[in-house]
Amino acid sequence: MKKHNFSAGPSILSEYTIQKTAEAVLNFAGTGLSILEVSHRGKEFVAVCDEARAMIKEILAIPEDFEVVFLGGGASMQFCMAPYNFMEKKASFLDTGTWAGNAIKEGKFFGEVNVVASSKADNYTYIPKHYEVPKDSDYFYYCTNNTIFGTELHEDLHVGLPVIADMSSDIFSRPIDFTDYILIFAGAQKNLAPAGVTLAIVRKDALGKVSRPIPTMLSYKTHVDKESMFNTPPVLPIFSALQTLKYYKELGGVEAIQKMNKAKAELLYAEIDNNPFFKGTVTCKEDRSLMNICFVMNDGKEALEDEFAKFATSKGIVGIKGHRSVGGFRASCYNALPLESVQALVDCMREFAAAH
Amino acid sequence: MKKHNFSAGPSILSEYTIQKTAEAVLNFAGTGLSILEVSHRGKEFVAVCDEARAMIKEILAIPEDFEVVFLGGGASMQFCMAPYNFMEKKASFLDTGTWAGNAIKEGKFFGEVNVVASSKADNYTYIPKHYEVPKDSDYFYYCTNNTIFGTELHEDLHVGLPVIADMSSDIFSRPIDFTDYILIFAGAQKNLAPAGVTLAIVRKDALGKVSRPIPTMLSYKTHVDKESMFNTPPVLPIFSALQTLKYYKELGGVEAIQKMNKAKAELLYAEIDNNPFFKGTVTCKEDRSLMNICFVMNDGKEALEDEFAKFATSKGIVGIKGHRSVGGFRASCYNALPLESVQALVDCMREFAAAH
Repeated sequence: MKKHNFSAGPSILSEYTIQKTAEAVLNFAGTGLSILEVSHRGKEFVAVCDEARAMIKEILAIPEDFEVVFLGGGASMQFCMAPYNFMEKKASFLDTGTWAGNAIKEGKFFGEVNVVASSKADNYTYIPKHYEVPKDSDYFYYCTNNTIFGTELHEDLHVGLPVIADMSSDIFSRPIDFTDYILIFAGAQKNLAPAGVTLAIVRKDALGKVSRPIPTMLSYKTHVDKESMFNTPPVLPIFSALQTLKYYKELGGVEAIQKMNKAKAELLYAEIDNNPFFKGTVTCKEDRSLMNICFVMNDGKEALEDEFAKFATSKGIVGIKGHRSVGGFRASCYNALPLESVQALVDCMREFAAAH
Repeated sequence: MKKHNFSAGPSILSEYTIQKTAEAVLNFAGTGLSILEVSHRGKEFVAVCDEARAMIKEILAIPEDFEVVFLGGGASMQFCMAPYNFMEKKASFLDTGTWAGNAIKEGKFFGEVNVVASSKADNYTYIPKHYEVPKDSDYFYYCTNNTIFGTELHEDLHVGLPVIADMSSDIFSRPIDFTDYILIFAGAQKNLAPAGVTLAIVRKDALGKVSRPIPTMLSYKTHVDKESMFNTPPVLPIFSALQTLKYYKELGGVEAIQKMNKAKAELLYAEIDNNPFFKGTVTCKEDRSLMNICFVMNDGKEALEDEFAKFATSKGIVGIKGHRSVGGFRASCYNALPLESVQALVDCMREFAAAH
């Protein structure tokens, strides 16, 4: 049976990425060797890594003063690397969910942390607005998409300060205005590659300004200077990333992808809003995520949750169980998820409602 | 043409590992999904991760007071994490090559670094012996196998202090005496899995003793407490690691593997010593590595180096170019390299000598 993969991450990758990776595991670039066992310094893989970095710059229209690097350790490592490299005394954070919270926690190891606003008291059901960011902050930090709570900042904020953003779950889903950013990072496992590589886009002239010594591997400068080859990078995830990037270019780039994501989200949110058996969890509709669409059984229908979960499974729908802090369901609709899968979920919701 | 993969790392993995990984990229554990796109919290992958950790404990006969964790970032990240977690004031290091040198460099970010002995002046052609390790060291650190220079410590040292070892290039090649270790780490890409995961074997009661605050991701305790699932681990590399471990168990475990490695190394070192066209670079024969076998053209035959390199390539021999700091050739003979490949290289050396 065809599976519809709504997993929150690691999550669906394009069929193209999967097929090309499977082929490379058996024979990489005609070398007669597996991508699992080739040297990262061999000309074939160096070409892959260089092409992937160049395509990221092209697809996201990254200005010249930024560099793109691939790192290990996951986005969680960035919660520590970002303040290590950029916080001299104080940074300001927007608290929009679990991942912003984790970044705030790590920031405290390095200096004064100022939370400008938080929606925590309302279980993060909206993105806070109308706050002041103190001008003496070294940077302003936010997470653009909150995978767990299903909210998303749909634009890049300008607060008159350098900005750092965790875009782990919505990078490549829309164009980015790089004007104020000094660092954007993203764990690869939502919209780029299998787990094991993290993308960092670093403004080069923002490096080298903090006074603390930075261990070599934790310094962005190390990886920028060595073009992601300071140490052995995660070879297969970078190969897979390149396949996804080629697929994105074929689709028409981030503008085309954004249009597709809007169409998918509109279809599913319309069903959530109109089907009397379900309701959305995000109270502020303009903050609804296009990536992670959270919903629960409607009032009075709560007892049907398990039954709907089983019914969805019987239709090949995978990975829609909500995070325990929200409950209900979460349909993650990353770039590689086809409209057909969203339609299958919508059909399943309608069929379930009709049968009850 | 059949390729003989002598790459120094990433390097040859067993055919079993490659085949099983290729299958899982198309359909993982009968889920109908790729290993590239499944949740790390799904029961199928949790089972893989748990089984891999358990098999490492079994194959290496790891005592109960240790925990096994999978980390991202490569062994280079361990050069920083080890002192972050274990150095209060001072640590002692044995300088046997580039990787020990990198660990020494990072150690200096955290306290006083004492180099007990070094073979640097002789381009690391032997492992220093007969040194004193100061008793006020928090730990003694060494790298068991020097990939670049082709030397290897063939046993675990006991100096009356806790020991930390980088076993990136010889783990699973021999039994380990865990008595004095508090930490053993190994980048996976030589003897375990594709690049992107690092194995750490940590003595639990050695944790939590330094006074400095440790950022969450850099603390071994985080990963020990969460059984490698604090954040998204590198899913595919861990899956591949499990396949290699199954293959090792089938081979008969580390004793059997050690015997095979000795046979391969004896065959190649005998040829290097007896063939008048070549000579080994490691001056102290007892320190010769079973993993990385370094040799150069013999005196007076230097001009033939390029010709031999081309001849070897024509025979399907891949990855024998020596590191620039040694020159000549390096045949890496990791666990997965079959005796047949070593025989092919030996035959090639004989044929080359006969033709000149």
